[in-house]
This record gives sequence, C-alpha cells and structure tokens, in this order.
Amino acid sequence: MINLFTKKRKVVLDTSIFINPEVRYIFGKTSEEAISEFLKLAKKTKNLEFFLPTTVFKELTHFVEENKIPKDFYYLVRIKSPDKYKNFCAAIFFYEFVEEIRMRINKGLRVAESAVRNVVNKGVEETIKDLRKKYREALREGVIDSKEDVDLIFLCIELKATLVSADTGLVKWADKFGIEWIVPEKFKEFLISAS
Amino acid sequence: MINLFTKKRKVVLDTSIFINPEVRYIFGKTSEEAISEFLKLAKKTKNLEFFLPTTVFKELTHFVEENKIPKDFYYLVRIKSPDKYKNFCAAIFFYEFVEEIRMRINKGLRVAESAVRNVVNKGVEETIKDLRKKYREALREGVIDSKEDVDLIFLCIELKATLVSADTGLVKWADKFGIEWIVPEKFKEFLISAS
Repeated sequence: MINLFTKKRKVVLDTSIFINPEVRYIFGKTSEEAISEFLKLAKKTKNLEFFLPTTVFKELTHFVEENKIPKDFYYLVRIKSPDKYKNFCAAIFFYEFVEEIRMRINKGLRVAESAVRNVVNKGVEETIKDLRKKYREALREGVIDSKEDVDLIFLCIELKATLVSADTGLVKWADKFGIEWIVPEKFKEFLISAS
Repeated sequence: MINLFTKKRKVVLDTSIFINPEVRYIFGKTSEEAISEFLKLAKKTKNLEFFLPTTVFKELTHFVEENKIPKDFYYLVRIKSPDKYKNFCAAIFFYEFVEEIRMRINKGLRVAESAVRNVVNKGVEETIKDLRKKYREALREGVIDSKEDVDLIFLCIELKATLVSADTGLVKWADKFGIEWIVPEKFKEFLISAS
C-alpha cells in the first residue's frame, strides 16, 4: 500500500554543483549543461524537493544567463530565503565563530607582516599577488564568509533539508549545526537512487 | 508599603571600568582603587545585583592580583557564564556579523597591500608598526571580537541585565540585541542614584 502521507525529503543546493568547474563536470561540461542534466535527473526522482536560497539563485544568474535557464527549473527548484527573524541558533555557534575569526584575523596579520618583510626580495607586484592568495586562505577558506553561506545553513535548518555543497568550510559548519549533507560527487548517484 | 517582591535590577560589568585607564579614573587612579571605590558604592545600592562573566573575571585577574581583590568583591559581584547551549540568537545577527566581518576582511587586505607598497618609503619596521595599528582598526575595533564580548552579550540576554562597558563596538552590538546599556562615565552617578 502506498503511503500518501510520506513527507518529501528536502534538498538545498549550493551553486557549486552548477558553476564550479571542478565539481559541475559530474553533470555537464558547461553550467547550462550541468543545469539541464540535473533537471533531467531531478524530474525522475519520486520523493525529493529541491530548494535554492534567493542569494544563491542570484549568484547563479551571474554565471548563467537567465534566458538559458530551462523553464521547468523554476518548477523543480524552489527559490526561497530562510526566515532571518524566526530562525535561531544556539549561542555556542556564535562563540565558535567569533573564536575562529579571531584566530584567522591574527593569522592574516602574520601573512601581511611577512609580505612587508619580503618585498625587498620579491618586488612589490609579486609580493602582492602572493599576499592576496595567502590572505584569502587565512581568512576566507574553510569558514562561513558570506550571506549566501548563512542562507544555505539557515534554510537547511528551517526545512530540515540536506545540503549539497562542494565548499568544505560550509559543510564543516553545517555539520556543527546537525545538518544532513552530501558531497556533489555522490549527488548524481543519490538522484538516480531516488528515481 | 514596601513591595517585598520587587525584582532586583541586574547589571553586567565589563572589565573596562576597572582596567582601562581612560575609564577607571571615574572610580580610582589604579585598578585596585577603582575596584574598592566601586564596591563601596555598590554596597550602598538597594536594588541592584552585579555580575561578571567568568572569562571577563579571568581577564581582570591578569591586571589585578587576586590577593588584592577585596574579599567582599566575591559576594557583591557574582561570577557566572551565560549558558551557551540554552541561549539563542536570531539568525539575523549571524547575517549582520558575517557581513560586517566580510567587509572588514576586505579592508584588512587593502591595509596590507598599502603597507607592501609603502615599504620602500618608510622602511620595514616603521611600516609594520603602522600596519599593525591600521589592521587592528580595520578588523578588531568596533566589532565583537572575543569570547569575552560574546559572554557579556549573552549574559545580559540571559539575565535581562544592563551592560556597563566602555567598548563602543560591544555596546553597538548589545543595542542590536535589545540589551540595556550605560556608559561608564554615567555609572558612578547611576550607583549613587540607586543608593
């Protein structure tokens, strides 16, 4: 007997599965191809619902022209922000975040000081190039660093959804919040298994 | 008729009123004097309770030897952390914080790049001194940047207490959370008014 009241499993998508070249190859060569292939598989699934936070959707439209997004995308992928006023997080996350940022800020200063000491050997332009890379690594990689990241976290909390993202920093934080997650490399098979 | 059931008004103290030389002069020339003068006034108040988060108390003991803290301090000032697991904050604060940090991280990189370009004029040591000051201003001043800050915020929320702090960044964030606040410059008169 079919249970008519089965709740659908909710999945929140990060744009990385469509735009990150190291990740989207799973679905297609270009972003457009990746979206089409994803939709083809998504349509066949029986028990899944897909969501994209508004900010993440806007990010996607910077990479893919809106008129190249297939029309059924908007039926299959629901665009929705989390409720910023009704969702809450325990104080402990604020502590962990402030501590992590503090440590990274100190690291960023060491990177900058080391750049200042190296100008004499490497020259200004080479030093700045190197500084930007190392500063970015110290302060941005592996941590929640944008409103898109926060949207993905809180939308997953609000919907009790599974997060699909290639961003290891984001997945690490989602995991602290007790959010289900899956890496993009396993997501195609996940969709096939659900059809 | 005296209402025996009047709830006491709770006050959470930042260490700045005891250790920051620009602030503690209100209570005394040295930190020890400031503590003694505060206790003298606090003892006379009728309807106030004073709290210090554990991390902030530890910070205080870096500046004042424990055996120089008057014994009645521990009766008059209650040492307590907020419950990190039972206190919550709305998602909106996480958004605002992540956005503010992102903006500051970008500013920090501009400060570092400008230092790299200036080494040739100012020399390494002078540039680093200047870099440290400007980097600190860009990334730390005016924002919650330590677990002590987070403790003060959440202890005020938990106790529905008034925050006394000279840290304008902390007061700005406390205000976003709807926390009552008073600047140290008005706090002596506040105590006298309450006695």
